[in-house]
Amino acid sequence: MDAVRVALLGCGVVGSEVARLLTEHAGELAQRVGAPVQLAGVAVRNPDAPRNFAVDPGLITTDAQELVKRADVVVELMGGIEPARTLILDAMASGASVVTANKALLGQDGPRLYAAAAEQGVDLYYEASVAGGIPLLRPLRESLAGDRINRVLGIVNGTTNYVLDQMHRTGAEFDAAVASAQALGYAEADPTADVEGFDAASKAAILASLAFHTRVSVDDVYREGITGVTASTVASAKAMGAVIKLLAICERVTAADGTERVSVRVHPALLPESHPLAGVRDAFNAVFVEADAAGELMFYGQGAGGAPTASAVLGDVITAARNRVAGSLGPGESAYAQLPVRPMGEVVTRYHVSLDVEDRPGVLAQVSTVFAQNEVSIETVRQQQLPDGEGAELVIVTHAATDAALAATVAALGGLSAVSAVSGVTRVEGEH
Amino acid sequence: MDAVRVALLGCGVVGSEVARLLTEHAGELAQRVGAPVQLAGVAVRNPDAPRNFAVDPGLITTDAQELVKRADVVVELMGGIEPARTLILDAMASGASVVTANKALLGQDGPRLYAAAAEQGVDLYYEASVAGGIPLLRPLRESLAGDRINRVLGIVNGTTNYVLDQMHRTGAEFDAAVASAQALGYAEADPTADVEGFDAASKAAILASLAFHTRVSVDDVYREGITGVTASTVASAKAMGAVIKLLAICERVTAADGTERVSVRVHPALLPESHPLAGVRDAFNAVFVEADAAGELMFYGQGAGGAPTASAVLGDVITAARNRVAGSLGPGESAYAQLPVRPMGEVVTRYHVSLDVEDRPGVLAQVSTVFAQNEVSIETVRQQQLPDGEGAELVIVTHAATDAALAATVAALGGLSAVSAVSGVTRVEGEH
Repeated sequence: MDAVRVALLGCGVVGSEVARLLTEHAGELAQRVGAPVQLAGVAVRNPDAPRNFAVDPGLITTDAQELVKRADVVVELMGGIEPARTLILDAMASGASVVTANKALLGQDGPRLYAAAAEQGVDLYYEASVAGGIPLLRPLRESLAGDRINRVLGIVNGTTNYVLDQMHRTGAEFDAAVASAQALGYAEADPTADVEGFDAASKAAILASLAFHTRVSVDDVYREGITGVTASTVASAKAMGAVIKLLAICERVTAADGTERVSVRVHPALLPESHPLAGVRDAFNAVFVEADAAGELMFYGQGAGGAPTASAVLGDVITAARNRVAGSLGPGESAYAQLPVRPMGEVVTRYHVSLDVEDRPGVLAQVSTVFAQNEVSIETVRQQQLPDGEGAELVIVTHAATDAALAATVAALGGLSAVSAVSGVTRVEGEH
Repeated sequence: MDAVRVALLGCGVVGSEVARLLTEHAGELAQRVGAPVQLAGVAVRNPDAPRNFAVDPGLITTDAQELVKRADVVVELMGGIEPARTLILDAMASGASVVTANKALLGQDGPRLYAAAAEQGVDLYYEASVAGGIPLLRPLRESLAGDRINRVLGIVNGTTNYVLDQMHRTGAEFDAAVASAQALGYAEADPTADVEGFDAASKAAILASLAFHTRVSVDDVYREGITGVTASTVASAKAMGAVIKLLAICERVTAADGTERVSVRVHPALLPESHPLAGVRDAFNAVFVEADAAGELMFYGQGAGGAPTASAVLGDVITAARNRVAGSLGPGESAYAQLPVRPMGEVVTRYHVSLDVEDRPGVLAQVSTVFAQNEVSIETVRQQQLPDGEGAELVIVTHAATDAALAATVAALGGLSAVSAVSGVTRVEGEH
């Protein structure tokens, strides 16, 4: 049987691990595929850069465009939009299947890649793009293909989960927790992509597209990061038996008239400690799925790191290689449902609102009136005096209300002289 | 596009749910497959039996052999070895792909079904056979196809998990917990298949075969049920910060000379509360996987019930139907590794041993000597006096030892006059 030739674009932490596994486990992988799986070349920007695995220097090239033309399976691990997109399209045009971990490209331009794959009759796999080493996309795309998924709640960014878990466990402020994450290598020197939720938003777009058979791009995703989460909000959540997690939320919403829309958003959320996602510690990822027939499912594991991500990449490489050998093709894009995206203002959740107020009689009545006027119903209020005559803090948890109603409430609260600050607004999720 | 004709063999709780989903979601399923998916017939023993879904009477037949010849995908939900096996082989012989939930048949005769599928060029899928609605086999077979799985620890039987969880939470004895499970419909009137571990043993054989690319039959699986688990053992575990779970354990064991074997067993085990499987409550299932590159993964959800199992069956039906439409084939058997099965006597774990002993000086010394003579090293001993001068109880937790050494120790302890009974021996798992 002819060897299946694999080209690697990029040889950083993940790429060098993929190269290592392809090399060291070549014998076993050949048995699993039914043909040798051969590393045909590794395209890099700097051939002399130090790598975790000593790739045969004869395989290293700086000419990615030439390399993709002599491969059966191209593994794109460069990240970013260009030149990754052009190289993927070139690879498909010359008949290669593509495996990529590029969430940004998929979240922005997935349908174009799918269309090219369909046109050329090649595979497009991207298990590593969401939740690293956790098998998640194949289960959504294939195992649950006969079910109706109603909701996906995901902790899909390990950096922010580490930061929030540190804040929860130690009471640290955001900046200190980020510094600790950086010291451990869990956060980049510039942590913006993680802490502002950009990374999670791309992943949410991918998850929603698969879950709802609908094209969802990253531009459809409402995004809010964790930079506004304070130690005080975390402590207040903890006192209520809750934790704060950055969630990627994909929901199917059915209106009274039966029409369906999807809501896709990334923001910090209070989760009750009893929710299976609440116990996800450190930099681990987990995705909770609610489906009509299957019920509640959870997938848990390492969402990042060279080895776990390489595991997902290699699973896709083996599948694409098996398909080559069998003359088969994996599933293509499934976007027939084309459900519209519900605007954020219409999204309904509960809210945890912290207010700094004057410590005098009548303030709670004024605040309550503002909530009532905006049709936001209050579930619980907790009032506590701040030290040194600095007034009081009100912590209010609401019943379900639209985002627009809550925003109007917050704006009106800002106009009350007795309210010195709306110090925190966090959505409450995870109710069944 | 021609319709893909689906035949159902069996129309009980799962079958009627599959019929319902195929009928009610026909439009969506056709979009996902790229062709109509048509229920071609339902074979039952008694056409007049009451069912949860009113199948079109024109589709009901008692002639399963005739039905399988006019189907593209045959779904076998009859259970048991015969006539299920003959019907599956007949279906394949006439060119149909097969989806089955039949763990007993797969655990006993899986390789024969695989061989027939390969010979006929058809698919064999069986996601529903292990852990019901949880996508698990496709991730093992495909997503982790590039990784090396070292261990699978599974709670794969909901009935026994419910019983053990009740015992843990309420302090109930085994019989009372089984009665409670029966009252809730979690246990059969004759609970033998569940509580004696037969069901879990079939699933362990399937998991080990996939995880280690090795043929493992149910006859290779060491099996011990939960009927010997007492309230006293559960309480002792709880006092140690542990829970008792019935685990299906599949391990790759590498000897000093590098040769590999697999250990496949089902038995009650003490798990520390910190282990992700320890928190699995009620009748839920969960499977914990340790792989070289992916690290630790967990899959959690409902392991039984009509709807969750139907979700898994339908995912397989859709995959098999897509393959028909695309002219593709899914992965076949992968058994190239053929690792030998390690005999139970050589399996190494830690043990929790409860002894009823005379309450007098010198007994602990005698007992310790027996452990030492059999080369079983003691980690902790807890001694407590029983009420009313009934002697004392010794609870001993050992360091790692072979099953054979522990069995010899227990036999020798029985010969000590100061030991009135070895009241419980439970293996300790979940160490990393």
